[in-house]
Amino acid sequence: MKVNGQYFHTIWINPNHQSEVKIINQNELPFKFSIKTLRTFDDAFLAIKEMDVRGAPLIGVTAAYGLYLGLINIKESNFHNEFKLLTKKMITARPTAVNLEFAVNLLIEALKNTNDLKEAQKLALETAHNLKQKEIENCEKIGDYGLHLIEKIAEKKPGQTINILTHCNAGWLACIDWGTATAPIYKAHHKGIPVHVWVDETRPRNQGSKLTAFELQQEGIPHTVIPDNAGGHLMQHGKVDIVIVGSDRTTKNGDVCNKIGTYLKALAAKDNEIPFYVALPFSSIDLSLANGVKEIPIEKRDADEVRFVEGKTGKVQVVPDDSPIVNYGFDVTPSRLVTALITEKGITHASVDGIQALLDD
Amino acid sequence: MKVNGQYFHTIWINPNHQSEVKIINQNELPFKFSIKTLRTFDDAFLAIKEMDVRGAPLIGVTAAYGLYLGLINIKESNFHNEFKLLTKKMITARPTAVNLEFAVNLLIEALKNTNDLKEAQKLALETAHNLKQKEIENCEKIGDYGLHLIEKIAEKKPGQTINILTHCNAGWLACIDWGTATAPIYKAHHKGIPVHVWVDETRPRNQGSKLTAFELQQEGIPHTVIPDNAGGHLMQHGKVDIVIVGSDRTTKNGDVCNKIGTYLKALAAKDNEIPFYVALPFSSIDLSLANGVKEIPIEKRDADEVRFVEGKTGKVQVVPDDSPIVNYGFDVTPSRLVTALITEKGITHASVDGIQALLDD
Repeated sequence: MKVNGQYFHTIWINPNHQSEVKIINQNELPFKFSIKTLRTFDDAFLAIKEMDVRGAPLIGVTAAYGLYLGLINIKESNFHNEFKLLTKKMITARPTAVNLEFAVNLLIEALKNTNDLKEAQKLALETAHNLKQKEIENCEKIGDYGLHLIEKIAEKKPGQTINILTHCNAGWLACIDWGTATAPIYKAHHKGIPVHVWVDETRPRNQGSKLTAFELQQEGIPHTVIPDNAGGHLMQHGKVDIVIVGSDRTTKNGDVCNKIGTYLKALAAKDNEIPFYVALPFSSIDLSLANGVKEIPIEKRDADEVRFVEGKTGKVQVVPDDSPIVNYGFDVTPSRLVTALITEKGITHASVDGIQALLDD
Repeated sequence: MKVNGQYFHTIWINPNHQSEVKIINQNELPFKFSIKTLRTFDDAFLAIKEMDVRGAPLIGVTAAYGLYLGLINIKESNFHNEFKLLTKKMITARPTAVNLEFAVNLLIEALKNTNDLKEAQKLALETAHNLKQKEIENCEKIGDYGLHLIEKIAEKKPGQTINILTHCNAGWLACIDWGTATAPIYKAHHKGIPVHVWVDETRPRNQGSKLTAFELQQEGIPHTVIPDNAGGHLMQHGKVDIVIVGSDRTTKNGDVCNKIGTYLKALAAKDNEIPFYVALPFSSIDLSLANGVKEIPIEKRDADEVRFVEGKTGKVQVVPDDSPIVNYGFDVTPSRLVTALITEKGITHASVDGIQALLDD
């Protein structure tokens, strides 16, 4: 999508130096747009861990490029042991997103039959490229399927603005292009359907006010930033037509792990009979898990993310020194609160049967 | 309650100068403890409007003292016209809390039979004093009633910590002493029951992380500050035994207007079968209203409260310049989500019958 009128992906190989991977440094957004260069495995590992890149699909693609960077920096021709260590380290960068492990496994699979380092490097780069391309295609398909849902709402209120609420950033900045939750919104906007987005600021890291608001603004989509506390009130007053969020991991029965606070919005949507959709690439469905609340590991992050708020001109302390803090990154929305899942394979019920039906297709 | 080991109320007359009303400037907390002097009606009006004082009971008492300050600054002996203008202005300082109007009406009632300015001044001061004393007594009674609820939970898990979640600040800083939602917590702590409080930071103004955390810390009560987004996750994982919040206005059928985001926590409590209590002085029940969502006016506050975050060392911008913001101060929790109301008259069901029963006592 566009930044200052110019078309960007969130990650790309420097066309002149295949040993350099470029990313948009998302920790600097929205007040500074800067490009960062990754040259080593550790650069990529830290970019994920420190959240210069974030969002399940982008984390996966960055991990793939990171392993490629690891391989091109390996000196010994017998690379398998060292590569194995890198794969093990990479999956520890962030614990919740299933895409990270998925991407790492893709690389392991791609390289398992070669003992030639040069060939391995080539295969790794190809695999990373293919994954990136696949993520773009998936997001665009999610956008096309999701567009139908928005069109249906538009038919019921012709000429009126469709109000969409989203939490966190499941936009193109979380992916490579289009986004997951935002893809249907971009598609609707491009088609001339009047949309307006309620953007949850998404404490503690403010991915909503910092990233989603930035994205929407750059694409010229009407939006309003709200505190996370406000969504229920808006729904009670008929100001939300549809909720669309992303997912970091979804279980085989449709329980959705997403940014902390998503569950609260799902409850409010249910209470006000507002459809609550989750847009996600099928790869983020973890078919090994059947109970999201019990089984999905929830990342606990640094207390300082809550104690200090980072803004345009630095950071300020908002919690007293002596008050303890706990900072969970995600929560789980039980499938009973999810109207449907929007995937690149189609829209389906958030249930074992619904997910199985897409698998069977 | 205590600040740095010394006992304080949130508002008091300077014992040496009855023309000075002292308040704790809550906009400076928790990083600076400062006392502000109000000398005129406008000082008091602005202290309410700018939220140097906040919380329904304290707003009411400050309004009463503010009208007293207005009266002692009136020069003409025929004061009724000017006083009437002041009362009309005062109720515009904050639109949601019913206590403001309640306090103003108390003063109007107290002065209606006198034409003597000196006597009116004396009556106004007495009325303000009495209201203040009444609020302290009410909070202490709320604490005693609420204590029983905590004791009942403690009986079921002997020796274990009782985890209480609260939203915003309905503590002694919102009242004169004890607080409403916090009164049962202080009482339980004084009685040796092990309590721990989950403190919602309460965006956008962070009354939780700035005021409730400060209060609890000063009283030595174990607590943890959490982003507003986290409460649902904690409840899903059995980490919350009881929710207690305050109220700015409650309708005669038990719909509870409180700080924006309260409704979301009530939904999560219901979904996880956790008791959700509202602690409030009976005066904040507005018997003229029967549908909170439809009838209670919700204050829209300045967008800059969301765009900028104030902290220890100043403020930082967290939303891009070009992104619009909406900032509602309150939301309404329908009575069906409220386990019971804790008032100074007793604990009652959040319903017409429940509230009527207390009125009849």
